[in-house]
Parts: sequence; C-alpha cells; structure tokens
Amino acid sequence: MIDKLIEKIKETQNPSVAGIDTSFDYLPDAVKAKCGSLHDAAQAIVDFNAELIENLYKIVPAVKVQVAFYEMYGVEGITAFKKTVDMARKKGLIVMSDVKRGDIGSTAACYSKAYIGNVEIGGRKFVGFDSDFITVNPYLGADGIKPFLADCKENDRGIFVLVKTSNPSSGQLQDKIFRDGSTLYETVGALVEEWGKDLCGKYGYTDVGAVVGATHPSQAERLRALMPHTFFLVPGYGAQGGTADGLKVCFDSRGSGAIVNSSRGIICAYKSDRYKGMSVGKAAAAAAEDMRDDITNALKR
Amino acid sequence: MIDKLIEKIKETQNPSVAGIDTSFDYLPDAVKAKCGSLHDAAQAIVDFNAELIENLYKIVPAVKVQVAFYEMYGVEGITAFKKTVDMARKKGLIVMSDVKRGDIGSTAACYSKAYIGNVEIGGRKFVGFDSDFITVNPYLGADGIKPFLADCKENDRGIFVLVKTSNPSSGQLQDKIFRDGSTLYETVGALVEEWGKDLCGKYGYTDVGAVVGATHPSQAERLRALMPHTFFLVPGYGAQGGTADGLKVCFDSRGSGAIVNSSRGIICAYKSDRYKGMSVGKAAAAAAEDMRDDITNALKR
Repeated sequence: MIDKLIEKIKETQNPSVAGIDTSFDYLPDAVKAKCGSLHDAAQAIVDFNAELIENLYKIVPAVKVQVAFYEMYGVEGITAFKKTVDMARKKGLIVMSDVKRGDIGSTAACYSKAYIGNVEIGGRKFVGFDSDFITVNPYLGADGIKPFLADCKENDRGIFVLVKTSNPSSGQLQDKIFRDGSTLYETVGALVEEWGKDLCGKYGYTDVGAVVGATHPSQAERLRALMPHTFFLVPGYGAQGGTADGLKVCFDSRGSGAIVNSSRGIICAYKSDRYKGMSVGKAAAAAAEDMRDDITNALKR
Repeated sequence: MIDKLIEKIKETQNPSVAGIDTSFDYLPDAVKAKCGSLHDAAQAIVDFNAELIENLYKIVPAVKVQVAFYEMYGVEGITAFKKTVDMARKKGLIVMSDVKRGDIGSTAACYSKAYIGNVEIGGRKFVGFDSDFITVNPYLGADGIKPFLADCKENDRGIFVLVKTSNPSSGQLQDKIFRDGSTLYETVGALVEEWGKDLCGKYGYTDVGAVVGATHPSQAERLRALMPHTFFLVPGYGAQGGTADGLKVCFDSRGSGAIVNSSRGIICAYKSDRYKGMSVGKAAAAAAEDMRDDITNALKR
C-alpha cells in the first residue's frame, strides 16, 4: 500500500493529505441552525464532506479521517464516518482512518479487522470501515502491533504508528531518556523500523509508517536519520503551528518519505479572510493548493 | 463516580467486573448458522448480551465493554455496542467502555464527549455512548488527558489510564528504565496519581484510575505502593493467566482499591466442561460467582 501512496503523491505532485475532521461546529451557521438531532448533524456533516471531497480529490492524493470527530455524534456519527470513508475511496483517494487504536493482541486483531482486515459471517467477508491506512498506538508493545502487520501483508494495507506526536505535551513521556541513552520516541522509532522490515515496497519504504509531528523539527530530523525505510505521516502543519520549512526534515533527500496533514486549515478555509466569499469546497481546494505549493516550494529550497 | 463504584462493589460483595467482549465467534453454533450479514451478527450479539446482563446484574457491580469487538462489525457492530451499554446501565450496572482512546487535546476532547461528556445540537445535549468510565492511553502526555479530566469533574465520571498492561509484550516499552531510575510504567503511574488529585472521592480514591494487569504481580505491587489514591482496573484474570493469589497485590490492606475483569471466562463459560449443560446466561452467572468467590477468598488469606 505504501507504493500506491507514493505513486499517488507523484501523480498529484502533492505530498499532503487533507484531514476531513468535521466537527458539527465547523459547519456554516445556516446549516447548523437547521439541525436538532444527532441524525441531522450527521447528515449535515456527510453533505459538507461530500462537497469537500468533490473539490479536493484531484488536488490531494489522500484524505485522513479522524474518527473522534464522528464518534462524538454516536452511532449516527459513525455512520457519517463510514460514508465519508466510502465516498473518498470511490473518488480514488487513499483513505487514512486516524483511529490511534492499540490494545492487547486478541483485541488489536479486532481493530485490525474493522479497518484493514475483515470478518466472516455465514461464509461471506465484510469490512466495517474499509481503509487503506490506519494509525496505531505503540504503548502495548509488539503483540499489540502484530495483528495489524498480518493484515497489512494479507490485504495490502498500511499503518502509521505514533512515534513523536504533534501536541505540546508530547515530550512528557516521548522525550524522556532511557538508561541506554535513547528517548522513548527513538525507541519506538527503532521498533517501527523493525516491524516494517518484511513489508518493504519498491521505493524503499515499508507499509509500517510513523506519525511524526511537524511541530518538533529537531526530533523529526533525528527520526528521519534513524528510520530510513519508514514513511512519515506528519500532522501539526498550519493550525497547530508547524511550518513548511520546519517540516522539510521529515522528507528524504529525494523529497519523498513523508506526507503532511492539514485539517482545519483546509476544511475551515471558507471561514478565513484569505478565502472570503468562496464556497466551502472552493475555499478548501484553494487552501489545499496553497498548502501543496507551500510544501513543494520549501522542498525545493 | 469512583465512590459509586466502590459502593456498588460493597453492595454486591464482589470486586470483579464482567467483560462483555462478545465476538460473533463466541455465539452458539446454532445462532451463528442463522446469520448471513453484519446486521444479523450484530442482532445476535445484542441478544446474547441481553441474556448475559439479565443473569449477571445482581452478581457483578459493573460490566466492561470492549468496543473493538463491536467496531469489527462496522456501523451495525457499533449499534450493538450502544445497545449493550444502554442495557447494562438500565439494569443499574456501572458501565466501563474499554476504548483505550488517546489523542492530541482537541481530538481527545471529542472522544471525551462521545463517552463521558456530551455534544450540543440545536440547544439540546446528546451523549453518543453514555458510559460511567472509559479507558484511556497515556502516550501523548497530559494534554491528551486533560479533556477527560474536565468531563470527569463536570459529569461525575471516571477514567482508567493504561499504566501496566496485561499482555506478554507490555514490558517492551513499559518496563524500560529511564535515567532517573523509574520505569515508563512507574512514570505513567506517578502522572496518573497527579492527574487525579483534584478528583478524590470520600473513600480516598480518585476518578482517575489505572489499568494494571493481573499477569504482572511484581509490577502491580510496586504500583499499589506508588499510587495510594488510584483505583486499579485489573485485566488478565483467567483466560490470560492471572490468578487470584497473584492479583491480591492490586488491592489495599482493607481489600479495596481494585476491580478485576474477566471476559471470556464469563461470557464463554457455557462452552466449558465446568458449566456443561447450562444456558449461556446461567453459565455466565455461575462463572461470575466462582470468580467472585475465588477473589474474595484470596483476599481473606
């Protein structure tokens, strides 16, 4: 799957991913005013996302859908999540479900089946939320990761493991130094590189990627050196404060090896002064193009 | 909320929780044979869970529902999860949603709203999956935890933070020793104790509990000493190998401070030789009583 992502990035000339993390609060006031139930809210979110995807699918190679924004609207929200994932895949977009799941082996196997594997009922196979990539939490160690690796191999999918997250307090645990001299994030980074070794694609990257925040450039630079076969999913650009120049270190010398996410900067672009007067979809497209140019120009510098 | 849990444990004289982690595969063959879709499977799971809850609600103080087992059946599975949570609450059981969520602050806030907070639409408040407790992953540090603490306070709910998990590879990261001499699990344990300090109930325990596996008694003993105000949710009893004598160290000197989970040992009891010939519900009740006696007897020794 990592090969498909790399090829799609080349095709679109765009190493960025649009985060379709649609809170009800992000919707236009006129839309919100018509909603009085979870069902209304979920339907309005699906409509909003449909407009986003229609306007973005030729510009970005992939979308990342943060499930938390849907879970908060209950079953109706999860239905909207599934519809969003399915709409994006139908348009040929690579879909990353940002779920950050992690549990003991037998439970991790259930999560894996939900997103990148399948369940069998009455001799037929079903996938709950058919995704190309998901994000995974490493706190439980290898046996919480192995079920995902098996599904990556069997179904040509990928995962991104949390290594160095973009939030302000990510360092509280992740930057702490073990007795062997390596930090927790470096230790996880080394494990991720190892977990991927049987899943290497033709461009030298594996199906086991890493989440590395744009907001911590020095740690990202260290990880890029430590993890030569690991593709990075880079959150934190834009609204969280990461800049194109800061996150250049996530890429390799060929300008590959990473994909940068922006969520609010794209999906809420219609509210910003810069894109004033544009529709939700047109503003998102313009913001995605601006982001693409910002990053690709930084990579040329 | 921790006070309510402690009182319910006293009332039932039972410091154990039944894990309603119902895989379709666990259902009786005759039931499975009639299912041909995700919808069928989800309905069969709800019926199975209804029988479990009807037979368990007088014996156990709480149920823990592992959402992964429902997510794998897609939207239909999540609908079954919600129905299970609602059925259990209606019977007066304390409901722990075992979701192990963790993300950056703004996203963690969404997860919190989904389970222990609420969202507002058209001036009305809704809760997606109304739970008393949820489990949370600490890898992102304090700002991924704070939104949950706010909802614990505002809505009288609780969380259990992963500290030392029950799986075989939990030590790969959690047991590693930092330069200051403390392990990762001890470091997280100390943070959990701190995160709870404004949420202390009348029995000396806080609404911020810890997940501490029954399968690692020496680490559990260390944590019990390190975390005097933290209530433990103890997975790993039974099918995973934890014994009542081994997990005694999770309790305080008064026999309080912990609740032990068993999932397969209870919900699949009807398949075991020991409870042969009993219905699903009767076998689960008998297994839950045996577990209660096993643990309370160990605590008396």
